[in-house]
Amino acid sequence: MDGGEGAVRAMTATGTTKATERLVVVGGDAAGMSAASQARRLKGPAELEIVAFERGHFTSYSACGIPYWIGGLVGERDDLIARSPEEHRARHIDLRTRTEVVELDPAGSRVRARDLDSGSESWTHYDRLVLATGARPVRPRLPGIGAHGVHGVQTLDDGQRLMTTLDREKARERTGRRRAVVVGAGYIGVEMAEALIGRDYEVTVLYRGEQPMATLDPDMGGLVHSAMNGMGIRTVGRAEVTKILTDDHGRARAVVTETGEEYEADVVVLGIGVEPRTALARAAGLPLGPSGGILTDLSMRVRGHEDIWAGGDCVEVMDLIAGRTRHIPLGTHANKHGQVIGSGVAGGYATFPGVVGTAVSKVCDLEIARTGLRERDAREAGLRFVTATISSTNTAGYYPGAAQMTVKMLAEQRTGRLLGLQIVGGPGSAKRVDVAAVALTAGMTVEQVVSLDLGYAPPFSPVWDPVLVAARKAVTAVRSAGA
Amino acid sequence: MDGGEGAVRAMTATGTTKATERLVVVGGDAAGMSAASQARRLKGPAELEIVAFERGHFTSYSACGIPYWIGGLVGERDDLIARSPEEHRARHIDLRTRTEVVELDPAGSRVRARDLDSGSESWTHYDRLVLATGARPVRPRLPGIGAHGVHGVQTLDDGQRLMTTLDREKARERTGRRRAVVVGAGYIGVEMAEALIGRDYEVTVLYRGEQPMATLDPDMGGLVHSAMNGMGIRTVGRAEVTKILTDDHGRARAVVTETGEEYEADVVVLGIGVEPRTALARAAGLPLGPSGGILTDLSMRVRGHEDIWAGGDCVEVMDLIAGRTRHIPLGTHANKHGQVIGSGVAGGYATFPGVVGTAVSKVCDLEIARTGLRERDAREAGLRFVTATISSTNTAGYYPGAAQMTVKMLAEQRTGRLLGLQIVGGPGSAKRVDVAAVALTAGMTVEQVVSLDLGYAPPFSPVWDPVLVAARKAVTAVRSAGA
Repeated sequence: MDGGEGAVRAMTATGTTKATERLVVVGGDAAGMSAASQARRLKGPAELEIVAFERGHFTSYSACGIPYWIGGLVGERDDLIARSPEEHRARHIDLRTRTEVVELDPAGSRVRARDLDSGSESWTHYDRLVLATGARPVRPRLPGIGAHGVHGVQTLDDGQRLMTTLDREKARERTGRRRAVVVGAGYIGVEMAEALIGRDYEVTVLYRGEQPMATLDPDMGGLVHSAMNGMGIRTVGRAEVTKILTDDHGRARAVVTETGEEYEADVVVLGIGVEPRTALARAAGLPLGPSGGILTDLSMRVRGHEDIWAGGDCVEVMDLIAGRTRHIPLGTHANKHGQVIGSGVAGGYATFPGVVGTAVSKVCDLEIARTGLRERDAREAGLRFVTATISSTNTAGYYPGAAQMTVKMLAEQRTGRLLGLQIVGGPGSAKRVDVAAVALTAGMTVEQVVSLDLGYAPPFSPVWDPVLVAARKAVTAVRSAGA
Repeated sequence: MDGGEGAVRAMTATGTTKATERLVVVGGDAAGMSAASQARRLKGPAELEIVAFERGHFTSYSACGIPYWIGGLVGERDDLIARSPEEHRARHIDLRTRTEVVELDPAGSRVRARDLDSGSESWTHYDRLVLATGARPVRPRLPGIGAHGVHGVQTLDDGQRLMTTLDREKARERTGRRRAVVVGAGYIGVEMAEALIGRDYEVTVLYRGEQPMATLDPDMGGLVHSAMNGMGIRTVGRAEVTKILTDDHGRARAVVTETGEEYEADVVVLGIGVEPRTALARAAGLPLGPSGGILTDLSMRVRGHEDIWAGGDCVEVMDLIAGRTRHIPLGTHANKHGQVIGSGVAGGYATFPGVVGTAVSKVCDLEIARTGLRERDAREAGLRFVTATISSTNTAGYYPGAAQMTVKMLAEQRTGRLLGLQIVGGPGSAKRVDVAAVALTAGMTVEQVVSLDLGYAPPFSPVWDPVLVAARKAVTAVRSAGA
């Protein structure tokens, strides 16, 4: 079954002359193509052949940008594409789109790939393998989940399908305003709510928890809740979706929850979250973590496998504050993984030490950010902590356009070590979370944070930066809590 | 000569019952009044009497906000005042405005103060003394420097005088556009240039150096130069002002430089920089540093003096990266000093560990930031270093309104330790310097910076944050430079 070319290479590799080695990359988005590109920068085609398989039509695109394209802020789909298949091929990467890898054979150092158009399959040998299979949206097995008009937005192909639905909806004659139901109120959920508002939909967001943005503590999520309502987004918490009703044409028409409530919908967007796409890795016996992501070492090499690397949304990363691995699908990590893997597969040295859990997002003018541990995470990690929440303007109070922001800080009891930060506020708030991200990485105490020399001028910050104000309050809380 | 009340207290202090101690504060702005307020929070009037002397009319105001008030962005002068004399008095602080301390007598634990309106003087005893005398604008002794229409903008009284001149100018009938000359192109100079443009002046900025913003390296200053010209601000470098010409009414009418050039001016603003106002401290034999600022220990106590603290623009602060003291007048430091001093004088414990030299500013839409060492500073500190300069958008490139920013990073040769960062760019650029400020404080290498988990989403950052892109390039530069 071995493809001809693969077999030849395999034989050559056992020969006496220095052979061209083959790198096979599974997955053509951020992690996979960053790895391929970095490897290509370090090794020319004579030393390293690179074959990359991608199931979809697109490569190296910004999945995180999809909501802004759907919402009309980004004009063209192709604006989201950093490097097209043609551009990769021009750099001597043998990129095969619409080709899905359907089996890994680590013992045989080969992968089986299927051409999705012709259906034909063949094995390809590798000397080094990179798995960058990404994540897939959680799709609960509910009646109607497969109906027309029900969409995930994980890949650019998903986005294209949603866009086609929205355009078709727009062309349909009908009376009254169009309605969208977004299931899930995490990053994708709230960003899609904004996008659909931008397309003049009446938007209802259904979510299981008490508050939207479960990546924040509920008190901070509550602020997001109020702000979303203020923007005209209807939010329904503690809502468990049980089925999707369809019309005579098989199109979704309403979402039904456990309590029997029906939410009419011309379009349904699933933003329930994603899970690592690791069925192949699991079948091949590769080590998976508690969230189902592939486990790697610090150089992004799959644990126990000398010749396999993995990165991006299909792996678990080390949470440096909680001391455990987590699944954190995020383009910025995927790109870093790709860089590290590309160096590694080309014989260089680089590592990805882990993350502190930083994430930023926005719904219309409301910015949302977090880093480190939430209260729940800290408890799960066995930590005792104090919290401090403050509100402040994010420029000098007298400066025109000063926006309000709320900052919540977690610090370890006794040591005062910073454990986490959450921000909900107006424009200019979210990226201030980076200060805490660096301080967390450095293991600073909140007392050290108070003394940080942050940029001050009236258009940029009050004289006490809001993060420092939170730290001051946290210092007091640590002292009061005692040992 | 001891004021009656003071004498009584001094006697009481030697008595056997537990006496009320007296804290005397010299200077009623950020550092002084923060110290007084913090001390008052910790100790009630029965334990600690607080007397504060202020030469001017105002207390606890934002001097950094003056350019925005002058420029019309901030409506009212009083918007800049965080706490008025009356508010301080309501908190049991005996605040005496328009009263200048004219002599310190550390041996006698007393200060001599003059009522600026009546001219009367008296001595006041202290148990603890806080010096917060601030800074004064450098005023070269040039012909015409004292003319009407020549203004500094260091205090709110200065700002009020300038505002009065501008209002008078506005009322004067004249043909043609009004012209302003700003001498100096540091933070105050560029902010005042923006302010005067906001008041519809034709603005010329004269400065000694090759480029504006000497707090940046000249290559980065050059970007500010071009941008200012693009805003219609005329900039003249290598310009040494020799005199100011006046009209028959004693009003400034032109600024003359060494080369004989004349720059017509209806108003002249001095933004040449400031120096610590420490004549009193010097006369009293207190220790001063190389920039003329008072030297303190880490608790902001004046070195060698158990009962005297100093903070704000009159002290030198430890530059943690260069390993030397510097004079860095900045409201944010002054407020921190005040907090630390207020704790200290009340018997508590707090320290100000030093600074890394962070500063942010803007001219119209151009943002400017720096932290750590410039090339010149690094050389002066005896460090060998590499530099890396990159340009990037500050959001995802495809996100609407993405602004360009240039980032320059300095790293120590061999160790790769981060030494400094400079940013010049569009809206949303400047505060990113905080990431480097924290990393500098933590002593991170540029390799560690590359791995930082910074907030990413398309509206906030490209997938590789610009600071990380600079760090990647710096890593390469460190490697290439070798040992």
